[in-house]
Amino acid sequence: MISDLQATFSSRAHLMKRSAIRECLKLTQQPGVISFAGGLPAPGTFPVDDLKAIVAEVLATDGASVLQYSTTEGDPVLRKLLTQRHQEIGLDITEENLMVTTASQQSLDFLGKVFVDPGDKVICGLPSYLGGLSAFKVYGAELIGIDFDENGMRSDKLEEILSALKAKGEKPKFIYTIPDFQNPAGISMPRSRRLEIIEIARRYDVLIVEDSPYRELRFSGEPIETIYQLDGTGQVILLGSCSKTFLPGFRIGWLIAAEEILEKFVTAKQSADLCTSAFVQRIAARYIEQGLYDKNLKLIIDEYREKKDTMLAGFYEHMPEGVSWTKPEGGLFLFLTLPPHLDAEPLFYKAVEAKVAFIIGSVFFCNGGGQNTMRLNFSFVSLEENIEGVKRLAKVIREAL
Amino acid sequence: MISDLQATFSSRAHLMKRSAIRECLKLTQQPGVISFAGGLPAPGTFPVDDLKAIVAEVLATDGASVLQYSTTEGDPVLRKLLTQRHQEIGLDITEENLMVTTASQQSLDFLGKVFVDPGDKVICGLPSYLGGLSAFKVYGAELIGIDFDENGMRSDKLEEILSALKAKGEKPKFIYTIPDFQNPAGISMPRSRRLEIIEIARRYDVLIVEDSPYRELRFSGEPIETIYQLDGTGQVILLGSCSKTFLPGFRIGWLIAAEEILEKFVTAKQSADLCTSAFVQRIAARYIEQGLYDKNLKLIIDEYREKKDTMLAGFYEHMPEGVSWTKPEGGLFLFLTLPPHLDAEPLFYKAVEAKVAFIIGSVFFCNGGGQNTMRLNFSFVSLEENIEGVKRLAKVIREAL
Repeated sequence: MISDLQATFSSRAHLMKRSAIRECLKLTQQPGVISFAGGLPAPGTFPVDDLKAIVAEVLATDGASVLQYSTTEGDPVLRKLLTQRHQEIGLDITEENLMVTTASQQSLDFLGKVFVDPGDKVICGLPSYLGGLSAFKVYGAELIGIDFDENGMRSDKLEEILSALKAKGEKPKFIYTIPDFQNPAGISMPRSRRLEIIEIARRYDVLIVEDSPYRELRFSGEPIETIYQLDGTGQVILLGSCSKTFLPGFRIGWLIAAEEILEKFVTAKQSADLCTSAFVQRIAARYIEQGLYDKNLKLIIDEYREKKDTMLAGFYEHMPEGVSWTKPEGGLFLFLTLPPHLDAEPLFYKAVEAKVAFIIGSVFFCNGGGQNTMRLNFSFVSLEENIEGVKRLAKVIREAL
Repeated sequence: MISDLQATFSSRAHLMKRSAIRECLKLTQQPGVISFAGGLPAPGTFPVDDLKAIVAEVLATDGASVLQYSTTEGDPVLRKLLTQRHQEIGLDITEENLMVTTASQQSLDFLGKVFVDPGDKVICGLPSYLGGLSAFKVYGAELIGIDFDENGMRSDKLEEILSALKAKGEKPKFIYTIPDFQNPAGISMPRSRRLEIIEIARRYDVLIVEDSPYRELRFSGEPIETIYQLDGTGQVILLGSCSKTFLPGFRIGWLIAAEEILEKFVTAKQSADLCTSAFVQRIAARYIEQGLYDKNLKLIIDEYREKKDTMLAGFYEHMPEGVSWTKPEGGLFLFLTLPPHLDAEPLFYKAVEAKVAFIIGSVFFCNGGGQNTMRLNFSFVSLEENIEGVKRLAKVIREAL
């Protein structure tokens, strides 16, 4: 072994931190712990039997091509289908605007790779998905957080920050948003707020990233146009995924952007992993083509809605006064806020002792805030565990008050 | 769209170039062109029928777990098997030394990400695999090439360069080698040369990267210990892949390293794509467990050996004097050297007109050399096309003399 390995690592590698969530999750895997901590889809929604038939068919008809190296932009069949699905909901795009990625996390990594030099500013919500923040930070991004209200990222605060940066001659590389059923906050950005954010981004000449893995998981209310569509000028980069609506184990995501942006991401992918498995892409494509994706989506939505309702009912029944929570219209998560003097971090260890787990909300705050918050996932555990877990959690909170 | 997209890209993004090979390959896809240009395995070797049975079994028994998010380090079943296979050939490792990656290209990307700051030196062979060079260059690596002889990277030249760097107080981040059936040169490094390289790397305190996707595809001669094993001190990072020995479409590779190095790569993978598809990993694991991998490997080796022999026989028969070539003991490629005054680049366009294609050798030379060389792949085309393609190529070369 060489004498000084640490000095051989890049400055980037020194910024790499093991995910705080992943380390917490290890504790939550103790026997008997009801975990609201992860972000896992319910495995009961995985369409195992349909897959068997489709895989057999794909191997029989397309084996030689889908088991071979594929194009970096994505399997042509899946790329076309995904483009059509976005055209149908109103996006003015062609296949040249869409590439398949090795799940959405790869798109997040590429955002850092393609845009961020050390010291560059990136705007994100308070709170924001940790996997995004980590990916940007590895490339040296300085994250600037924008406060949330019940409609998501506050446009007045966004303008304040952009204006202050402009006064110093600075401009962030992009604004990172998760408008639908935000992770971790579980809240959605109404149309009016989306338009405000777009207007400000245009005025300050800044790209918007719309990370949208939960959009199709809507339990109630009407779908709102994507920021990509509302903008319509190519100033938005839209990230999609089928990890939450189909299968996380296939590692399929996509990125939609103006051609001159997409071109850079395709080049980034050439040296990152050449292509995503055409085998899983083609299976996904046939699954969508046969109408099974939309059919199964309805079942997933019904199941998650019931689980969310059960959790909220448990909160109303058991949570002490002074505790509040978001009421998501979709997605996998909700956010719980404790009275200001309560710190969720010591509470986490007490909760694990009481055999229930959550994610400490502060990990999602790039400014170190949110110490009295927690993220709760409702998609994974059964209804029975959901009911029992909420009781345990409420008891732990009550005792800490 | 924002006003100045170019200024918004990172300095890294400005270093990203579309792969020269991939752009050439587009030309070679014209109808009737016999292409020795790509690096594709023969699709006839893909075990489609065996896969059908295994996929059905994996879905039935492990569906819920392999379709879910998996551990970043790799599917436990595959990780264990790959570790065992390397222990069996003499590597002193445990599972803690091995992680699964989204094909070898991801390992190459991570080498750049984890080790290279802009301006850092990386040593590579003249020639070397372009996908490796590109991955390092994106992170700002300055590549220093070492001349080859018939045994691969010249140890005297390596020492000369390391000594000159040391005199300036500099040290490269790593030495990038492909000891078995090198891409593109098609030559192998004998044991004695491996030991020389290790001795020099130790003396100059530099890591060695051993990129070894072709090792198991040996047509003749005895296997040589990996550099990883011959070193035995953890100064070597070994990259493996089943893209050439099983299926490129599964995108499965692995990286073996000392634990303190592997730890950084696992963290890099958390933000790059979280995990590789457990679905394809488990299928691969069952395929290996059932002995099918080793059985099919024998068929692949027999097929590629015959194709290589056919190509060499064609060369002896048709190539004009002054043209020489390597005689690989394994792998997918051989390297052809034209008389010094002939430039392979204009010849490439003439060859495509004559309906045969190759890769211009100079793309593999980081110093701009190798203008009279070309890489030829023999794994993909049929024996008949092989024979006809060599005739066409020999004619094009003869006419250019």
